[in-house]
Amino acid sequence: MAAEIISPRSMDEQDPIDAVFALHRGGKMEITATVPVRDADDLSLAYTPGVARVCSAIAETPDLVNDYTWKSNVVAVVTDGTAVLGLGDIGPEASLPVMEGKAILFKQFGGVDAVPIALATKDTDEIIETVVRLAPSFGGINLEDISAPRCFEIERRLQEALDIPVFHDDQHGTAVVTLAALRNAATLTGRTLADLRAVISGAGAAGIAIAKILVGAGIGDVVLCDRQGAVHVGRDDLTDVKREIAELTNRGGLSGSLVEVLAGADVFIGVSGGTVPEPAVASMAKDCLIFAMANPNPEVHPEVAHRYAAVVATGRSDFPNQINNVLAFPGIFAGALQVRASRITEGMKIAAADALADLVGPDLAADQVIPSPFDPRVAPAVTKAVAAAARAEGVARR
Amino acid sequence: MAAEIISPRSMDEQDPIDAVFALHRGGKMEITATVPVRDADDLSLAYTPGVARVCSAIAETPDLVNDYTWKSNVVAVVTDGTAVLGLGDIGPEASLPVMEGKAILFKQFGGVDAVPIALATKDTDEIIETVVRLAPSFGGINLEDISAPRCFEIERRLQEALDIPVFHDDQHGTAVVTLAALRNAATLTGRTLADLRAVISGAGAAGIAIAKILVGAGIGDVVLCDRQGAVHVGRDDLTDVKREIAELTNRGGLSGSLVEVLAGADVFIGVSGGTVPEPAVASMAKDCLIFAMANPNPEVHPEVAHRYAAVVATGRSDFPNQINNVLAFPGIFAGALQVRASRITEGMKIAAADALADLVGPDLAADQVIPSPFDPRVAPAVTKAVAAAARAEGVARR
Repeated sequence: MAAEIISPRSMDEQDPIDAVFALHRGGKMEITATVPVRDADDLSLAYTPGVARVCSAIAETPDLVNDYTWKSNVVAVVTDGTAVLGLGDIGPEASLPVMEGKAILFKQFGGVDAVPIALATKDTDEIIETVVRLAPSFGGINLEDISAPRCFEIERRLQEALDIPVFHDDQHGTAVVTLAALRNAATLTGRTLADLRAVISGAGAAGIAIAKILVGAGIGDVVLCDRQGAVHVGRDDLTDVKREIAELTNRGGLSGSLVEVLAGADVFIGVSGGTVPEPAVASMAKDCLIFAMANPNPEVHPEVAHRYAAVVATGRSDFPNQINNVLAFPGIFAGALQVRASRITEGMKIAAADALADLVGPDLAADQVIPSPFDPRVAPAVTKAVAAAARAEGVARR
Repeated sequence: MAAEIISPRSMDEQDPIDAVFALHRGGKMEITATVPVRDADDLSLAYTPGVARVCSAIAETPDLVNDYTWKSNVVAVVTDGTAVLGLGDIGPEASLPVMEGKAILFKQFGGVDAVPIALATKDTDEIIETVVRLAPSFGGINLEDISAPRCFEIERRLQEALDIPVFHDDQHGTAVVTLAALRNAATLTGRTLADLRAVISGAGAAGIAIAKILVGAGIGDVVLCDRQGAVHVGRDDLTDVKREIAELTNRGGLSGSLVEVLAGADVFIGVSGGTVPEPAVASMAKDCLIFAMANPNPEVHPEVAHRYAAVVATGRSDFPNQINNVLAFPGIFAGALQVRASRITEGMKIAAADALADLVGPDLAADQVIPSPFDPRVAPAVTKAVAAAARAEGVARR
């Protein structure tokens, strides 16, 4: 896998593992002052005594904190280190390189400042109360790599407690980009979302969120599968979150294994790992759409998928149609912060997906149903769409 | 007071209040990536999949977090907004401009990254547990503008709980700079610290810490005064912290008001506000040293002080000998972080003060007992001295 983690340029020079560690030495980010502090005059403006006037103004008119501090442009990237990449529960310190990476992507792609906050607790109540106490310093909370099912309760209760956006990217970032790609894939094959029956393999953070957003966006039907097979209202082993999903999905009332419910399905969405047997893939509908997003090993290898599918997407950068969260989260937060949204609604997420889908435009093709993360139009388009949707949904505060 | 908050240059151009607010718009700091994230190759090193190798290495060898993330160079500037400048309990949001100012001073003067963390709680236990949970992400904790007496317990219990430096700057920054200036003032007047009897007006965070460091540095005697007058072991109204100080100070067993104990004293240190009557100043010893540090109104106006004192210092930048914390905290944290000290000991603080005092060197004069905050030698000298002291005291980890 070495070729995946290193540029050819660097490979000529050094061992790829060394290149990764060399790049990480001392971390990947720093704080920079945006005002001068060179002399006593500067200090008297940026610090005492001048700063006291700004403090007093905020004490009198609290909303001014958004105008005169970095609060309205800074997001806390909060984790407990329990579900880090494919590595699992590696603890807060070991998760920090990912959180720093996320932070610099926020800045690079969305112009949003972000601070890694890796917590020394895995307790749901403690995580919630800690983030609530931190919130005065931040304009938004990006939850990251917190394992299911705690991630659902943490996000819900935090959003209830706070008047700033709380967004679990492992859920919603993935869901937004999946929806965008799926909408374009449907268009490409002469269908709309309403024509599609989708099967999702994996009922963790991403699977749950994808099911919700597909329902919200008007998909024909969607069946979520966990290790016990299709999630349906008749099952008595469902968590609260899965029961809620069962009410929203599987209108056909399907039960049985993933392989069974895949028969005749239009869409496979894999966020589970594992491998789908080729006969099950072959049983899907004509012109089916296969989004096999597990990393590094897609649930259906693209080579196999292409034998049956009209469009194939993965989570990998070395195949076409990469479902990459970086297409979504920088612009979603930038848009929400721009209008000081109190939360990120389903409508704002769908607006982000639509904006992403629209960007592909005339370039739409089986190997191009989603823009490149490095397309400079992406974050501005998502930002604009999310800000407009926030206004339309009444959660914008300016 | 407008002339104090604005440079003459800016005053020509605009209203001084507008200049302060204009400078603060959008805040005073941002996050910057220190590694490139321009293309897929960059992302594969700084983010997935490359970053997973760094995470795995830290999970296996936890101390590597200091080498491969920004943790070892980043400090949380933690407040609850209860004792902000002279403004008092203005809440976490209104305190943020000060915390941002502090953060950019950390970077400008010490090269240390710092993140403002203003907490939505004033409860001692909640502040402590919150900071403990945040600690994996930070190399040090700078407590700021937390009111006494909670600040003492919070600092003590946090330092007991954590293996990274915890430093309440309102206490120790002020104490270090005061000690440095006092040592030089003693030298200038042909005395040593051991020859001096000092009286401190104000038994809050700064007064307590100054009393402690003066005792630690070998002052002849020091009498701390609160609103009830001299703190002595015979009083039955003392808090735990004042009782501890009473055991260490006032060896002469003085009781009575500030005015009474000032008679014959060599040193006045004001960290209380209020005004000392001129006759009390006149009753001090010959060649007395007056450090009237209340802002904006010194307890003894320099004009009055100069009638009696050999050396006069204040907290103001428009008089000579400004006792300014920025002389201390950037270098103290830079030195502690450099050697990954587990705490900041009294010895490290005294070493910082000595380094500051020594920098004045042959320039020592009644109007120059302390270096300028803008002397570029300051932070490097303090950093070096603190790192060496940490090694000598056995708290350095590299």
